[in-house]
Amino acid sequence: MNRALVFHGKGDVRVESLPDPTPPNSRGAVVRVEHTAICGSDLHLYHGALPVPPGFVLGHEFIGELVETGRDVRDFKSGDRVLVSGVIGCGECPACAGGHPIRCERHGTRVFGNSRELPGGQAQAAAVPAADSALLRVPEGISPEQAVLLTDILPTGYYGARSAEIRPGQDVAVIGLGPVGQCALDCAQLFGPARVFALDRVPERLAAARAKGAVAIDTGHDPLGQVLEATGGQGVDAVIEAVGADETIALSLQLVRVAGVVSVIGVPGIAPFPFPLLPALMKDLTFRIGICPVPELWEALVPLVRAGRLRPETVFTHRMPLSRGAEAYALFDSRRDGVMKILLDPGR
Amino acid sequence: MNRALVFHGKGDVRVESLPDPTPPNSRGAVVRVEHTAICGSDLHLYHGALPVPPGFVLGHEFIGELVETGRDVRDFKSGDRVLVSGVIGCGECPACAGGHPIRCERHGTRVFGNSRELPGGQAQAAAVPAADSALLRVPEGISPEQAVLLTDILPTGYYGARSAEIRPGQDVAVIGLGPVGQCALDCAQLFGPARVFALDRVPERLAAARAKGAVAIDTGHDPLGQVLEATGGQGVDAVIEAVGADETIALSLQLVRVAGVVSVIGVPGIAPFPFPLLPALMKDLTFRIGICPVPELWEALVPLVRAGRLRPETVFTHRMPLSRGAEAYALFDSRRDGVMKILLDPGR
Amino acid sequence: MNRALVFHGKGDVRVESLPDPTPPNSRGAVVRVEHTAICGSDLHLYHGALPVPPGFVLGHEFIGELVETGRDVRDFKSGDRVLVSGVIGCGECPACAGGHPIRCERHGTRVFGNSRELPGGQAQAAAVPAADSALLRVPEGISPEQAVLLTDILPTGYYGARSAEIRPGQDVAVIGLGPVGQCALDCAQLFGPARVFALDRVPERLAAARAKGAVAIDTGHDPLGQVLEATGGQGVDAVIEAVGADETIALSLQLVRVAGVVSVIGVPGIAPFPFPLLPALMKDLTFRIGICPVPELWEALVPLVRAGRLRPETVFTHRMPLSRGAEAYALFDSRRDGVMKILLDPGR
Amino acid sequence: MNRALVFHGKGDVRVESLPDPTPPNSRGAVVRVEHTAICGSDLHLYHGALPVPPGFVLGHEFIGELVETGRDVRDFKSGDRVLVSGVIGCGECPACAGGHPIRCERHGTRVFGNSRELPGGQAQAAAVPAADSALLRVPEGISPEQAVLLTDILPTGYYGARSAEIRPGQDVAVIGLGPVGQCALDCAQLFGPARVFALDRVPERLAAARAKGAVAIDTGHDPLGQVLEATGGQGVDAVIEAVGADETIALSLQLVRVAGVVSVIGVPGIAPFPFPLLPALMKDLTFRIGICPVPELWEALVPLVRAGRLRPETVFTHRMPLSRGAEAYALFDSRRDGVMKILLDPGR
Repeated sequence: MNRALVFHGKGDVRVESLPDPTPPNSRGAVVRVEHTAICGSDLHLYHGALPVPPGFVLGHEFIGELVETGRDVRDFKSGDRVLVSGVIGCGECPACAGGHPIRCERHGTRVFGNSRELPGGQAQAAAVPAADSALLRVPEGISPEQAVLLTDILPTGYYGARSAEIRPGQDVAVIGLGPVGQCALDCAQLFGPARVFALDRVPERLAAARAKGAVAIDTGHDPLGQVLEATGGQGVDAVIEAVGADETIALSLQLVRVAGVVSVIGVPGIAPFPFPLLPALMKDLTFRIGICPVPELWEALVPLVRAGRLRPETVFTHRMPLSRGAEAYALFDSRRDGVMKILLDPGR
Repeated sequence: MNRALVFHGKGDVRVESLPDPTPPNSRGAVVRVEHTAICGSDLHLYHGALPVPPGFVLGHEFIGELVETGRDVRDFKSGDRVLVSGVIGCGECPACAGGHPIRCERHGTRVFGNSRELPGGQAQAAAVPAADSALLRVPEGISPEQAVLLTDILPTGYYGARSAEIRPGQDVAVIGLGPVGQCALDCAQLFGPARVFALDRVPERLAAARAKGAVAIDTGHDPLGQVLEATGGQGVDAVIEAVGADETIALSLQLVRVAGVVSVIGVPGIAPFPFPLLPALMKDLTFRIGICPVPELWEALVPLVRAGRLRPETVFTHRMPLSRGAEAYALFDSRRDGVMKILLDPGR
Repeated sequence: MNRALVFHGKGDVRVESLPDPTPPNSRGAVVRVEHTAICGSDLHLYHGALPVPPGFVLGHEFIGELVETGRDVRDFKSGDRVLVSGVIGCGECPACAGGHPIRCERHGTRVFGNSRELPGGQAQAAAVPAADSALLRVPEGISPEQAVLLTDILPTGYYGARSAEIRPGQDVAVIGLGPVGQCALDCAQLFGPARVFALDRVPERLAAARAKGAVAIDTGHDPLGQVLEATGGQGVDAVIEAVGADETIALSLQLVRVAGVVSVIGVPGIAPFPFPLLPALMKDLTFRIGICPVPELWEALVPLVRAGRLRPETVFTHRMPLSRGAEAYALFDSRRDGVMKILLDPGR
Repeated sequence: MNRALVFHGKGDVRVESLPDPTPPNSRGAVVRVEHTAICGSDLHLYHGALPVPPGFVLGHEFIGELVETGRDVRDFKSGDRVLVSGVIGCGECPACAGGHPIRCERHGTRVFGNSRELPGGQAQAAAVPAADSALLRVPEGISPEQAVLLTDILPTGYYGARSAEIRPGQDVAVIGLGPVGQCALDCAQLFGPARVFALDRVPERLAAARAKGAVAIDTGHDPLGQVLEATGGQGVDAVIEAVGADETIALSLQLVRVAGVVSVIGVPGIAPFPFPLLPALMKDLTFRIGICPVPELWEALVPLVRAGRLRPETVFTHRMPLSRGAEAYALFDSRRDGVMKILLDPGR
């Protein structure tokens, strides 16, 4: 029996017992989940904004022990403690074989607990296809909490920073200081900016950014004016957008200076965004938006976490048993109690 | 007296006599125009789609002889035969001084015959601010027609190709095979693509692209389907959009494969474009749109033209005296008579 | 029985019968060789300049049919027609698994017919370790001769050109116009140079380069003076050295301009090279030397060969049966009869 | 009268009175020196290892006030407080005009107090050619000591780090922890390495590096063994060599891993270095050596110093009047008293 967090409709998630999963194919595996977390993008489903069927298991951030592997899994075996990429491909096509799951030529990008064929990992056990390309043995020197963050949001934050093409001495803005934004802020610092402007409305989140050396900007008080004043009217060289809302994307396009880069890692809604092309043309703009190719980024991130240069685990503010998953979602959605990110323990 | 092509309203341009221009400031100069051309972007003004006042002189592609220089012009003197960057900055701010006119920190990007303070060069004489950063002595081995194309559309085509980040062996699409698109197609070939798909509706333009080794795709016949079939369903690695219309930009976003680049050099209208963010997120998209920083690109382009690796002058299909400028605009706008690009001779 | 070309000492190679090879381990395979070729670097062994033991099978350029695969080979099966990377790693370490055989953390770089544990492919059959990372099914649209060139020298030429960081409009020199140099010349053209100077002494080789649009420079007649004169005294932006001799490497350092790149793909001897550091410091030099990571480059090269943008097969001047291998080596070494590259047919 | 530090032979420098300098040409200027410093590379001259004539004024690190400008100086005027690039070109050729003094097409790279035509700045006044391209007004928020370091060694350290192509998560080694090495260490951190290994013999210098978060390695105790052990036998991704000696350059080539980069900023002697090409080939090595193009780097470095992300001024251990210059050289050469870098005050 597999206790799992199941979606039943807008705002309605429940812990239920499901059959034990099996490897989805000969290259797949089953993970007994030891730790899992709720991601901001899970709230899109919780709010009913994305089409998932009732009865679907949520969650794409999880680590645990391999308990079963298909016969064509080559690089892992039962008993391995692994972290699981939240995004995944078929594992066989040329793109996947080359380590690029989001370029999967067969399925395109898929995310656990989002794509219909990929039930999630907020459960006691989860099935993983394409194990050889989606797993990483939990590296020595990496804590379980750090490992959970390596499944999605730390790579996503890093990806946003890398895509922003920050060069030493530049000014950067990060919009949205939730867990992903905090990771993006930490990762932006890896590229040597002179200043990082951190934009949000929540005082605790602004304080956390300030403690990391960022210039905190309350978006409630003319953020564009504040940034333009601080940059001699020029704007910043790069913006990392970690919200996904029309207003913050529009703000990004205004904050960025001529020849700058806007890198969007916030997950947007389904409606198109009214993109002001002519001003963008005059600005000579680079606009990037993408899902993070998680496994490609482990090579850079694991040594940084191990060396203590990145300490992403500070985003966890709450730890709760999976059995109280419905309560956890409600708390996370409320943003009350200083909640930043919640770790769920499937063992309890 | 300075005979010049003057805008009077939608579809109404006239050759008139104006006072002789003078250097606009101590760093400026006056050019006696020897050759000038009509650009596709001039049609935006001709159609009344951009706000320019009646009585304004059009044109941003011109070459000629310096006849007067301000006292702070350092690198040029009267008698020099020069080509003039169609985009221009103040010439003094740090960005301009570093050779980046479109990053001008004082004025932003300005284009002759577009920005109100910069009367154009479809005339017998034109005033040029910031001469030291906007001019290039016509290099040995470069013909006058080639020189005219170095003021805007060849650099623009090159810029579109460079921004598309084409790597050897990739597949590229160029949408729109007018003069700028032809230049973009030529320049895309400099980056070693395996195949270039060239999209347009006009048979002569498709034939010209085919003659250059491109795969011609008639946009009247399911261009997306044709490109997907030719690329195993994956799409192309990069798209250069040389039209600026919503439909062709939307098509670009569909043609490009996962992790690809869309590079827009077509000049869009004022209305925002409905950008499909969520599909773009799943594609991991880079979207670039910008005015070309003309002087930065001369270093690369002059040797290529001189060595015969680029032969942009083939875009000229018509040569007419400036005195028949109204007729030239009407012809250019009609796309009749196989017109691709028109050279105007102010001497006649 | 496996007829194979065997090294017996300086200038002494013989065709002998050896036992049939078997997969060297569970990830290995056996290829029935259909075509193989002699590489310039094989002459280092032929001349006794590298320490290989008598009885060793030569050759690292071969293609053929898989006739046996180890039980852990995942992506290939018997009957597949494959080309084999001439350089190879263990196939298991993180670097190899990531597609970087020359960064193999276990063995370092190994080359068939060079490293003692890797008998070569100038034979009727050859054993291949690490099959999943060393093989490529011969792609549709690629001829057998082209496939042979994809095992080493075309990727090597491409690697040399890519490492030279050529940008459009630059001037490049290629030193040494043997088969690898010809490939380097072809590949240099993919990066849009204005001019390629091609340096050698052999008239036929210079003529071949000239036919490809290069500026031929006879190294017998003051090549430095000729290049400096053609470049206004500045030298070229990049040099690709395809010989490996001290004199040509020294010449490369002189030919390159300030802030330029020298990319060495010629295989040097064992003795150190007297590197003039102080002049290099004043030049702000980038110096690259490396073995080509063959499998990484197939993604770029296969589409280019298939599209006809690269036609490397023109380097083959002679086709001979493997049974006349001793004669083939002698001919290749003599550089007589216009020999450029020799294809050997193991079936005869 | 201009009191200046003058070279008279090996180990013999004296403060003498010389005629006041004048602008060397119409684009030149005269600086009344306020602060100057002794650079490690000055010791090459002090040791008689480079050919400078007796009577020559030393020093290339200085800042001060402009007291005279030639008539073609455009961007500066008397009274401006400026820092002076230690390397300089003609200021007129295309390379210089583009901001690349070390690519000067007329003179090549020249250094104050090194090149015969460029008397140095360890004096009360110094002549500067090509003022527009060699000067920077001392930016707001930059202290005089920081400004002195921006004339050479901070840009040099940054250049070494940038040329090393460090990517986040990599391991880096810096060899030589004198003033330039300390700057290189600080700048390497801007690129997000996981670990920086800092190699030297002097305990105080190792301690300073350790205090900055580096892993200190005493070169007296098998540095290669220590680094290989810490990196699983692979070596580091990049080495910055800040000594210039044959042994440390040879060590760099051993410390670097496959496909890594060695970036030499130490100034070597005149004798060629015996470069082991064949091992380098097997390593797929990038080797860079160059003089830093100082003015190009101010754009990145000024904001970093102003924001407190770089604090290079900690290298200054001693402040002395110019009148005690001979004593200062002897102290600096001795490496006694914990001397790291000496600031000289020409006013005293």
